[in-house]
Amino acid sequence: MTRVAICAPATPITRDVADAVGALVTAHFPEIRLVFHEQCFASDGHFAGPDAARLTALLECANDSSFDAVWFARGGYGSNRIARAAIERMNDAARRKGYLGFSDCGFILGGLYRERIGRPAHGPMPVNVLSEEGPAAVLRSLSWLAGSEDWLEPGLDGRPTVAFNLMTLSALTGTSLMPDLTGHVVIVEEVAEHLYAIDRLFFHVVAHLRGVAGLRLGTVTAVPENDRPFGSEAEDIARYWCDRAGIPYLGRARVGHDPSNTIVPFGLAAGGARA
Amino acid sequence: MTRVAICAPATPITRDVADAVGALVTAHFPEIRLVFHEQCFASDGHFAGPDAARLTALLECANDSSFDAVWFARGGYGSNRIARAAIERMNDAARRKGYLGFSDCGFILGGLYRERIGRPAHGPMPVNVLSEEGPAAVLRSLSWLAGSEDWLEPGLDGRPTVAFNLMTLSALTGTSLMPDLTGHVVIVEEVAEHLYAIDRLFFHVVAHLRGVAGLRLGTVTAVPENDRPFGSEAEDIARYWCDRAGIPYLGRARVGHDPSNTIVPFGLAAGGARA
Repeated sequence: MTRVAICAPATPITRDVADAVGALVTAHFPEIRLVFHEQCFASDGHFAGPDAARLTALLECANDSSFDAVWFARGGYGSNRIARAAIERMNDAARRKGYLGFSDCGFILGGLYRERIGRPAHGPMPVNVLSEEGPAAVLRSLSWLAGSEDWLEPGLDGRPTVAFNLMTLSALTGTSLMPDLTGHVVIVEEVAEHLYAIDRLFFHVVAHLRGVAGLRLGTVTAVPENDRPFGSEAEDIARYWCDRAGIPYLGRARVGHDPSNTIVPFGLAAGGARA
Repeated sequence: MTRVAICAPATPITRDVADAVGALVTAHFPEIRLVFHEQCFASDGHFAGPDAARLTALLECANDSSFDAVWFARGGYGSNRIARAAIERMNDAARRKGYLGFSDCGFILGGLYRERIGRPAHGPMPVNVLSEEGPAAVLRSLSWLAGSEDWLEPGLDGRPTVAFNLMTLSALTGTSLMPDLTGHVVIVEEVAEHLYAIDRLFFHVVAHLRGVAGLRLGTVTAVPENDRPFGSEAEDIARYWCDRAGIPYLGRARVGHDPSNTIVPFGLAAGGARA
């Protein structure tokens, strides 16, 4: 039995998300027991409850030795507001767990990885179950939570790797949550940003990636239409800024806000959430 | 006679902008001679011509000793792509000029200030003339270009000050364009960003503002409607992050993407563009 606690450090999910993920577990992973923290369904303005409630829920999930992993319910925005406080109060049980999510939850994954707490991994979240082909993505996360490496990002190699939403990585730089990425392959993805904004994000991020092994580009989806075409595509932009910064561009990755999203354990992949 | 060269390091303007600004000069500042570089009207995808053309135009304006100041025609996005290369090729004439603009052109202003080149200042641009009440804003810039200090931001005090678009400042951090802001009053403004994105920008920026004298908030305009209210307003967000970072919050400023925008000379205000 693998016990997985689910909380929402950023924005809330609805009960139908929990029901749909629960049905997937029942059908495909009877060895997993999911526990949705009630905070997942709380609401306070933009967030899944006030900072204090989200922090408490995250710590209850992380610090409880009966859970093998913490799965973040959804991104959106807000995990950065509580990530540092959570990390400072994590106990020994928290250090033995897997942590799975992506998008805004990259703030927590980054901070955990910086402090070498547990096994942070980038991968699909419960909220993804509601999208078309989302259940297949969620099943990949469940397989990792159950201890499998079947759905790791197919291009992972012998070099330590991380994956981030590009905007999240940009906002991490210089903060107390930013990990040392020297020697790492860095995968970035983006959603719902104009290409000019993606160009600006690359300009910024490459200045903070000196010494990395290289950069791979995940999916860039839901780019809004601008009043005029940018003039180059997302991969051209990634190549351009890698070239300017002297960072090896290593090609595409199956990571992003789309159903092809796979699992990227931070560092060197070694076993699933329970490794 | 004050001779002002205008170029467009980011996105282009149309001829009617040049005509309208020219009419203001004729009517109110006959002692100013404006020279719109032809590159202002060029177009290449998102930009006012390719990087090489924008770089060349900026250098032709900056390095020509017959010009007293360079005025940036418009922001948008793109000055970051050429700012470092421009700064590295600037000559002695460039070091004696004023440079005026804001928004995306903050990348150049930041880089100039970092290298102590000329007199960079944050203020209205030619493109603003087309908006309602825009001519009044453009007249403030013309007065500064003519050597006046009548339209400096009214809260400037004995401490060195800079002003930036918040997104631009976030993207500057850690790059070779970022100036040392120790001891400075930092004014930030934002336009057309969701409040959650503004919260994220403050989270990021305050980590890079250790040692500043304080922060002031310009206008935050054209905030898009979100699917739910954020739960606090822009000034609450600024206060919150200043408080978390131990940065004195010093109140509002007349700076931003609206017609009340005034002039903020970087550093200590001392004379106009020709000081």
